[in-house]
Amino acid sequence: MPVQSGRPDAPATRMTRRALARVHLEGHDQWCLVSAATVVPIAESFGDLAEILVTGFDRLEPAGEPVPFERIDAWLPPVTAPCRIVCQGKNYAEHRVETGSSPDKPPFNLLFSKADSALTGPYATIRRPPGVRLLDYEIELGLVIGEPITADCRIDADNWHAYVAGLVLANDVSARDVQLGQGQWFKGKSYRTFCPVGPWIVPMDDAVRAAFDELELTLAVNGERRQHAFAGQMLFKPWETLAEIATIMDLGPGDLLLTGTPGGVALHVPPAWKQRLGALLFDEARRTQMFIERQARNPRYLKDGDVIEATIRTADGRIDLGMQRLVVGSQ
Amino acid sequence: MPVQSGRPDAPATRMTRRALARVHLEGHDQWCLVSAATVVPIAESFGDLAEILVTGFDRLEPAGEPVPFERIDAWLPPVTAPCRIVCQGKNYAEHRVETGSSPDKPPFNLLFSKADSALTGPYATIRRPPGVRLLDYEIELGLVIGEPITADCRIDADNWHAYVAGLVLANDVSARDVQLGQGQWFKGKSYRTFCPVGPWIVPMDDAVRAAFDELELTLAVNGERRQHAFAGQMLFKPWETLAEIATIMDLGPGDLLLTGTPGGVALHVPPAWKQRLGALLFDEARRTQMFIERQARNPRYLKDGDVIEATIRTADGRIDLGMQRLVVGSQ
Repeated sequence: MPVQSGRPDAPATRMTRRALARVHLEGHDQWCLVSAATVVPIAESFGDLAEILVTGFDRLEPAGEPVPFERIDAWLPPVTAPCRIVCQGKNYAEHRVETGSSPDKPPFNLLFSKADSALTGPYATIRRPPGVRLLDYEIELGLVIGEPITADCRIDADNWHAYVAGLVLANDVSARDVQLGQGQWFKGKSYRTFCPVGPWIVPMDDAVRAAFDELELTLAVNGERRQHAFAGQMLFKPWETLAEIATIMDLGPGDLLLTGTPGGVALHVPPAWKQRLGALLFDEARRTQMFIERQARNPRYLKDGDVIEATIRTADGRIDLGMQRLVVGSQ
Repeated sequence: MPVQSGRPDAPATRMTRRALARVHLEGHDQWCLVSAATVVPIAESFGDLAEILVTGFDRLEPAGEPVPFERIDAWLPPVTAPCRIVCQGKNYAEHRVETGSSPDKPPFNLLFSKADSALTGPYATIRRPPGVRLLDYEIELGLVIGEPITADCRIDADNWHAYVAGLVLANDVSARDVQLGQGQWFKGKSYRTFCPVGPWIVPMDDAVRAAFDELELTLAVNGERRQHAFAGQMLFKPWETLAEIATIMDLGPGDLLLTGTPGGVALHVPPAWKQRLGALLFDEARRTQMFIERQARNPRYLKDGDVIEATIRTADGRIDLGMQRLVVGSQ
């Protein structure tokens, strides 16, 4: 099945450093460098993102004339399968509260994974799986791994950026009825089209690192702003998460770490005391059923035809991860 | 970090069809065909398992004389990273009961994943992560995927074996304090050395398929039998699981599906009514702490120096996934 990607309506960027994109152009999939409102194909032919990262962003040679965004047929996901996708849960205080938890930084960093076949482009149709009623959005800042993370790595606040090739805008789309109804989140977050990434990867450099905390995440559904936060509000910072991952598992160039979503998703979980009371009164199957019925009356969940627009950028636009525009559809 | 693998004490097999192994032999990593108590190196040089499976088991040419097991320096995991590892939870009735659930086939198939850097050999040392007290074993039958599983596949009880290249013995080693203390299972099941596989892959064929339900899973700790069941006792059958996976995500040659563990693990979760009462009386953090303290007094959890021996085979030995012998150690 081809990766779905819609029209090339990426707005121009004011970034001075060139970002990396993969587009469908004149009948071919093509890796490109992005600058202002144009892309320039790169000279060498690369298969997947890992190959590019092993070569190094700085060695990519542009080939030919700039192509304006309007001539692009489709923006493809710049993160490519096969890759590992590791995700953080409940990593912003406001999102913790809406999911029934205390706003404080918890004693552990909640990790889970998504299937890489969920990857899709930044203008894709999100396909609702049959039977899923509670389809939800989660804007997330993605870290594209650039250097191998192994047991030998000592990652800290001063060197973490050396392991990160770049940043990418992502959406951790979630089928809440499956995710929460079945306890483990892997399935409900792994359906095909549930991980839109792009439009491009902004390479990590000193300027990006210095401005990291000021990156502003914004998501709107049908023009109504739902999510808004700064990367600096993450509870577990990237260096803490990468340092912990190194003690557990390996990651490599082209793998993706999603750093959690801020508040404002459709999901609303009752506070802990209500959950505890519910646990006494009803068995687990009944509680799950009641939860799903109650959530299904919440109009914030995604309906077919809904449009999700998201951006991540600094206020001055100098660091700009681009815009996603996703449409919700049936299978 | 090299893959850890101990001495080559694999017992001889009575299988008539040759299995696939990867061993360290005379200074090299070498893919081999296994027969009785010998291995024969294969002629072509392959990097990873996916390459072999795309070529096809039947086209592998032996090269040279048989090498007796005693001359093998180490048995390496025959499933190689990078690969996807998808796992089923609570897929045997007896294990459901010991984890506090009803024994009945549930309304959904519980899926989660393990990191591929957890892969290790069948005679490895299982390294206890610092601070982990509740280290547990889980013998599992692994299905090695042979053909791409995509949205277009229609998998059913009659054709599922066509997507499976072979079967392998695996252990889904679990840090229960992390797995259950943090809610999502990915981290507590993904530490390095937490997925021993091998010693070899038994290719799928009509005889294997016909005898599938009679495959007998047995695991002992320090000579005491702890787990014993037949593959036919799985609640969700392989075809059901593969058919569902096709509707969610893609898998490819060399990926691994672990089909769940039978009863007999160290973990013992109180029944649902006790959990509900506890939920009323104590908050989640306190309940987790109490659970871990209570479990820590359970002598069945793995201690340093413990030896875990496991086999999967038919009673007549004609289909034999070999034996694992794992030792528990500190980091």
